[in-house]
Amino acid sequence: MANIDFWFSIGSTYSYLSVMRLGRVATETGIEFVWRPFNVREIMVAQNNIPFANKPVKAAYMWRDVARRSDKYGLPPRLPAPYPIPDLPLANQVALLGMREGWGIAYAIETYRLWFEEGLVAGADPNLSRSLRVARQNPEETIVRASADAAATALADQTRAALALGIFGSPTFVVDGEVFWGDDRLDDAISWSRSGRVR
Amino acid sequence: MANIDFWFSIGSTYSYLSVMRLGRVATETGIEFVWRPFNVREIMVAQNNIPFANKPVKAAYMWRDVARRSDKYGLPPRLPAPYPIPDLPLANQVALLGMREGWGIAYAIETYRLWFEEGLVAGADPNLSRSLRVARQNPEETIVRASADAAATALADQTRAALALGIFGSPTFVVDGEVFWGDDRLDDAISWSRSGRVR
Repeated sequence: MANIDFWFSIGSTYSYLSVMRLGRVATETGIEFVWRPFNVREIMVAQNNIPFANKPVKAAYMWRDVARRSDKYGLPPRLPAPYPIPDLPLANQVALLGMREGWGIAYAIETYRLWFEEGLVAGADPNLSRSLRVARQNPEETIVRASADAAATALADQTRAALALGIFGSPTFVVDGEVFWGDDRLDDAISWSRSGRVR
Repeated sequence: MANIDFWFSIGSTYSYLSVMRLGRVATETGIEFVWRPFNVREIMVAQNNIPFANKPVKAAYMWRDVARRSDKYGLPPRLPAPYPIPDLPLANQVALLGMREGWGIAYAIETYRLWFEEGLVAGADPNLSRSLRVARQNPEETIVRASADAAATALADQTRAALALGIFGSPTFVVDGEVFWGDDRLDDAISWSRSGRVR
């Protein structure tokens, strides 16, 4: 059974569903998920792939779909959440730093919880400092480190790696090079990791 | 248990998966699906919602995803199918005529089979005549009727009705006014028809 890489950007709406349930899925399946933050906005702009801006009907549908699927997963969002978020790079530079230091998953979950369930924009205060505190980090010191050039370069490197895999959206699950886009493809990715097929 | 309206355009790629499996799903679930052809291209162009043109990475992923899901459903497509099809309106004017006269589902299934499994473009000959013959219709006479102004107006009316429901893509399932977009939301639509929730 292969590991599954979980590529996500804080700032993506459907990623809320994956971020909030992945821990439980890992426990239930025994699969190890490797959380990989990247900058999906950079890829989408480059590929002229703009899903919701200036598409009011599709955007309204997306919120309704997220609401129904949240109900399915037992999640209590207040929708619509503030969208889009203004500082997607910083939100994910913090996440990437955290993944390397072991507190990134706790930060990502709390950031999404505050954003989708309490209406506090991810990647900005008060969300940023509160979610860092929940992840047991010093907010001021961590935000300085995550804002440095090295952190921006690290996220750009991850985004290039995502691009090289054929990733164009968030969330995306990758198993042995096979790409599954969307929270709704998690089952397909799990099936692939077990049998090399979608069943 | 509510009926489910199945809104689709011949010309949509993911609709292949729904068209080819819906009969079996109806039998297994006891749900009645009402097949409703419309012109998705008109809505997508009006809403600036262009999923694949000039998006090569996303388009390549779409074919891969359709291939994997076809395998899941036991379908044998040869991919990529010719895309986009040049005469989407005619393909669907024929389908709409057929739905009103009782042979539309047989035509839609055979058209998709020829298009996705034998590489013959839907909405044009030889696909058009062959699928009409399988649906036990006279191709020449039927194509004349389906090309008439009245048939074009009928499809435009259906497309306006789809728009009024909030439909923006194909396939879409509608249950009691609740909209579910995508072949991958069929289970959600079925759940909704049974319990008014996505489970």
